[in-house]
Amino acid sequence: MSEFVIAIDGGGTSCRAALADRHGNVLGRGKRGSANIFTASDAIGENIVMAAREALHDAGLDALDLSGIPAYLGLAGINVGERQRVLARALPFADTQFVHDGLIALQGALGDNDGVMAILGTGSAYVARSGGKLRNVGGWGFAIGDQGSGAVLGRTLLQQTLLAHDGIREHTPLSRAVMAHFQNNPEAMVEFAQQNARPADYGSFAPMVFEYDDQGDPLAGRILRDTVCDITETLDTVVFEGCERLCLLGGLGALYAGRLEPRHQAILKEPLADALGGAVQLALRAFPPAMEGEVRR
Amino acid sequence: MSEFVIAIDGGGTSCRAALADRHGNVLGRGKRGSANIFTASDAIGENIVMAAREALHDAGLDALDLSGIPAYLGLAGINVGERQRVLARALPFADTQFVHDGLIALQGALGDNDGVMAILGTGSAYVARSGGKLRNVGGWGFAIGDQGSGAVLGRTLLQQTLLAHDGIREHTPLSRAVMAHFQNNPEAMVEFAQQNARPADYGSFAPMVFEYDDQGDPLAGRILRDTVCDITETLDTVVFEGCERLCLLGGLGALYAGRLEPRHQAILKEPLADALGGAVQLALRAFPPAMEGEVRR
Repeated sequence: MSEFVIAIDGGGTSCRAALADRHGNVLGRGKRGSANIFTASDAIGENIVMAAREALHDAGLDALDLSGIPAYLGLAGINVGERQRVLARALPFADTQFVHDGLIALQGALGDNDGVMAILGTGSAYVARSGGKLRNVGGWGFAIGDQGSGAVLGRTLLQQTLLAHDGIREHTPLSRAVMAHFQNNPEAMVEFAQQNARPADYGSFAPMVFEYDDQGDPLAGRILRDTVCDITETLDTVVFEGCERLCLLGGLGALYAGRLEPRHQAILKEPLADALGGAVQLALRAFPPAMEGEVRR
Repeated sequence: MSEFVIAIDGGGTSCRAALADRHGNVLGRGKRGSANIFTASDAIGENIVMAAREALHDAGLDALDLSGIPAYLGLAGINVGERQRVLARALPFADTQFVHDGLIALQGALGDNDGVMAILGTGSAYVARSGGKLRNVGGWGFAIGDQGSGAVLGRTLLQQTLLAHDGIREHTPLSRAVMAHFQNNPEAMVEFAQQNARPADYGSFAPMVFEYDDQGDPLAGRILRDTVCDITETLDTVVFEGCERLCLLGGLGALYAGRLEPRHQAILKEPLADALGGAVQLALRAFPPAMEGEVRR
């Protein structure tokens, strides 16, 4: 039985790895590109393995072999079944366990407490834990889900900008800034959207919406009002009676915080740890040290 | 100079061809799969050529060589520049002229009259002609445009169905029917959307929305109200002062007609001819018969 575990936090924009000892001490960390199982399917296995190797190197333990260490992976999009079996076969670890990245984020944010966590990053997902029971909502991905995410926000911004270009909506400073980004050429924007854009590419436009909203831009204001409505509707579904702990995670979490309804702002709490920390906690439970004399693998 | 012209109407779901003589008489017709320049880029050239050959065969003129006949093509998505140059080089015709499929539809629908045309099919696009001047609106494709199209309507339906599955919205008979289509498995729906779905695939769900709306389904009603708002907003932009002719084209045109605002219903007219007929008219003007004794090509 290995005296180490590997924990992976694989999201839409990056894949982070930690090498931890049996006491949960993180000895080394690594980071590579996207581990979203939908949008990076070719690169995902490679990104995971390279991030793990980097964590070993960071710990000064390059000599260790990945095939001797069990890995616990929280991955974006993993709730869609078949792909994880293919991926599991491709990975080199001693043992491999997958969960949705929402679960490792939840453990990090809440520890063992009850509460609700909303991930608002490139994608979006919600998990509630009440009396130890979990409820997952969202996390379905960019194409037909992920309301409130940076990717959906960015896509909405481009849609609204095209409507302004066509004279259907008024131009605002925000829509003009987006047009300028594409050399004022709507064809370039459409080419970007139809051919090349991954969720993270759309998501790169999301921070602009918040910046321009702070300056009173009407388009930014309208997009964010609609989006906060979507988030509020979902929070009202997952926040249970007596819930005292709501954590907002992901790159946009802090930006949304002050825009939520008072009933939700009232229970906002800082996360106790990040998702990678949650993955380490869960890895130690998933792969308990062998009893003395027991042989595993 | 050929005594024939080929006219092509290439849309999101099919590519139709006509072989016509110099008097505009259609001698033969052919039909193949999608000629949307974005979503069928590998197959588009092949679909066009096969539809054209079929038109020759239909006319009993198999012996004719495509390289001796000029072709006039109205294609979905062609307003995005670079791709048409690549495609032009790949096609075998004596001469090749491209326009957006909106233009051939306009000529078919309005003849030489002023008016407005809205194409509401797998995609959506609008063209106004006033005093001979054209104004194009929309037609930007599924990713960040095409409001009111079947593809966007179908995507919205799947999004709303997932929200009902997650308990964020109420289920209705329509959302239950969509879930049943995916064996009540949201993962199957997400897999469809993320991996395989082209605009025409999403569009295949659009007729359900109208059917269930006729039965009073609240979800169908809400989706159609929002969508008709989008269409109305665009019509208010393109319908000019004194406009007396509004034609709705595409598979959903007739379904939307009775749902429009009275000011738009009041000027609805049946199209004079279809898009392929419009392409034939424009082909004859684009490739005029050579003057006696003149040698072209």
